[in-house]
Amino acid sequence: MGGDKAPEAVIHGARRVLKEYPDARFIFFGRESVIGPLIARSRRLAACSQIIHSDTVIAMDEKPSVALRSGRESSMRHALDAVQQGKACAMVSAGNTGALMATAKFVLKTLPGIHRPAITATVPSRSKHVVLLDMGANIDCTAEYLVQFAMMGDAYARAVLGLDSPKIGLLNVGSEEMKGHDEVKDAHRILRSGDIPINYHGFVEGNDILEGTTDVVVTDGFTGNIALKTAEGASRLIYETLKTAIQNSFTAKIGYLLARPAIRMALKRYDPRKLNGAILLGLNGIAVKSHGGADAKGYANAIMVAIKLVENDVNKKIMDELSRAAQPEKTLTLAVSQS
Amino acid sequence: MGGDKAPEAVIHGARRVLKEYPDARFIFFGRESVIGPLIARSRRLAACSQIIHSDTVIAMDEKPSVALRSGRESSMRHALDAVQQGKACAMVSAGNTGALMATAKFVLKTLPGIHRPAITATVPSRSKHVVLLDMGANIDCTAEYLVQFAMMGDAYARAVLGLDSPKIGLLNVGSEEMKGHDEVKDAHRILRSGDIPINYHGFVEGNDILEGTTDVVVTDGFTGNIALKTAEGASRLIYETLKTAIQNSFTAKIGYLLARPAIRMALKRYDPRKLNGAILLGLNGIAVKSHGGADAKGYANAIMVAIKLVENDVNKKIMDELSRAAQPEKTLTLAVSQS
Repeated sequence: MGGDKAPEAVIHGARRVLKEYPDARFIFFGRESVIGPLIARSRRLAACSQIIHSDTVIAMDEKPSVALRSGRESSMRHALDAVQQGKACAMVSAGNTGALMATAKFVLKTLPGIHRPAITATVPSRSKHVVLLDMGANIDCTAEYLVQFAMMGDAYARAVLGLDSPKIGLLNVGSEEMKGHDEVKDAHRILRSGDIPINYHGFVEGNDILEGTTDVVVTDGFTGNIALKTAEGASRLIYETLKTAIQNSFTAKIGYLLARPAIRMALKRYDPRKLNGAILLGLNGIAVKSHGGADAKGYANAIMVAIKLVENDVNKKIMDELSRAAQPEKTLTLAVSQS
Repeated sequence: MGGDKAPEAVIHGARRVLKEYPDARFIFFGRESVIGPLIARSRRLAACSQIIHSDTVIAMDEKPSVALRSGRESSMRHALDAVQQGKACAMVSAGNTGALMATAKFVLKTLPGIHRPAITATVPSRSKHVVLLDMGANIDCTAEYLVQFAMMGDAYARAVLGLDSPKIGLLNVGSEEMKGHDEVKDAHRILRSGDIPINYHGFVEGNDILEGTTDVVVTDGFTGNIALKTAEGASRLIYETLKTAIQNSFTAKIGYLLARPAIRMALKRYDPRKLNGAILLGLNGIAVKSHGGADAKGYANAIMVAIKLVENDVNKKIMDELSRAAQPEKTLTLAVSQS
C-alpha cells in the first residue's frame, strides 16, 4: 500500500518480475478490495499470489515511533511478520522509510552482533557499480557502526556483486588522517589496524563515489542520504541542460537525432528505475525499500533485488564476515578506547 | 605559493584580472626569486604589483595547528597580515584550506558576534546561482552556527547576487519536522520562529541544491563538502558518459558536430573555472580560497570574487544583518534552551 503509485505499481511490478523469475510467488499485504481486482486481471499473477488483508496503512508522514506502536495491524507490519515467521523469504515496501526501518528492526531484529542495520544502495559509477551505505537509517553513527557497515558492505559486494576482495572506502572531507570528525577518524583507525579482514582503501571524498575509486563507500545516514540525492540532482541537471540546449537549436536537433541511439544506450545504466531497491542490510531477514515514486518497472527492480539477496544468501555471508573478524566486538572496543 | 600550479597560475590569473579590472593592484607573497621573473614578463602587471618575500611556504598537507604555530613568516600569514593591517583589501590563496582557515581566523578574527566563519561557494543550479555554506570549515556545527550561516548567506546573496529577499534552506535528509539530527532540528526551530529576519524556506534535501529550490543552502562543513564534491563527480560522470557514447558511434559523432555549439554554450555556466573562489565568510577581512588545482583562468575568477566582495562591502552587510536581528545572541540562547 506504500508509495505514490500503490497499489498499481506494486502489482504491475510483480507481474513484470514473473517474466524473469517465473517461479516467484507473492503475498500482497493491504486492502483486499483494492488489491484483489488488480491481481485478478492477470491470470498468471493470480495463480502465484495470495492476499493478506489489512485495513491499516502506515501514512507516508507517520512518525516511526507512532507507526511502530499503533501499526500492529498494518500491511507493513504484517509483511514483516511473514518474513519473521518464515512465510515469506523477503519483503519489499515503497512505504514510509522511517516506519519501515523501525518496524523491521523491531520485528526481524538485527543479525547477532550487528548494532544497527544500514540502508544500502547500489549506484553506477564510471566503470562499475558502487555499494553505498548508510543511505539514511542512522542519522548519528558511532565509529563502531561505521566499522560494521564496512563489514556488511564487504559481505554484500561479495555476495551480490560477486567481487573477490571488494575495496572499501570511508567517506570523508579529505584523504589525510587528520581530516573529519571523531567518529570517522576512529573508524579509520580501526579499519586500518588490520583486525577487520576487509580490503580497506582508506578515506574517499565525495567525487570518489561516482569515480568508482572503491567498490563500497561507507558513511553515516545523514551524509549518505544527502550525497545520494545531490548526485541524482546533479545528473538530472546536466542531462536536462544538454537536452534543452539541443532542443533550442535546429542544427543541434538534427545532430541529436543522429546521436540519440548512442546517448540512450549510454544512459541506460543510469535509469533510476533500474537502480531502485535499497536494502535494509544487517537485519535478521530480508527487507527492501523501493523509492516512494517508483513505477512498475522500478518496483519490479526492487523485488528482483530482494530475490537476489535471497538467492545469494547475503545474511549468511555477513555472519561469516563477522566471525572471520576474530572476536570483532572485543577488537572494536579495544581500538576505540585507544583513541 | 599555494596550489598545484603556483606560482604560474596565480600570476597569470592576476594578468587576466587586469583586463576586467584595469585599476586592480596586487601584492604577491612568496619567494621573490621565483615570482619576480614571472611578473617581469608582463610590463602591465609589473607596474601594478609589489612582491613581499617570504621563504616559508605552508605545505598542502600541513596540519592547521602546526601551520598556525610555525608559519608566522609564511607567505600565507604575511598576506593575511596585510589585510588585517589595511595594506590589502582582500587576500586570495590556493593553499592548504585548513591552514588558511586557522590562520585567517587567528589573524583577521571573526566579525563581532559571529561564532565561526564558513566557507561559502556559489554553484549554478537549474535556473540561477545558489549560495552554499559551509563547504568544509566547520566539521561539527551547533544549531547556533547554522543559524548564523543562514544570516551570513542571506547577507551574501543580497550583497553579491543582488537579491532582495533570498530564500534560505537548511539541508536535511527530509522535509518533515522530525527528520535529522538535533543540531539541524534546533536550527530549524530558531529560523522558523521569525526572530531571525530572513526569508526562511525550511528544510531542503540533496536534490534541492541544484534544483534551485532556495537561493541559499545552509549545512555543516562535513555534509557541505561531501555534497559539493559528489555533485561535481556526478556532473562529470554524466558529461563524460555522453561524450564517450558519442565518440564511439559514427552517426552520433556527426550528430555531435552539429550539436556541439549548442552543447558548449549550455555547459559554459558549469565551467568549474568560472565557479572557482570560495569565500571565508564571517571573518573581519576578506579572504578567498581558490581550488588547489585551479589554472590561470580559475585563479582569475577567485581574484574577481574577492574584488566583488570588496566592491559590495559584504562584511558591512553581514553586520547590518546581525543588528537587524533584534538581540540575536539572546534570541538564539533562548530558542535553543527551549528544545
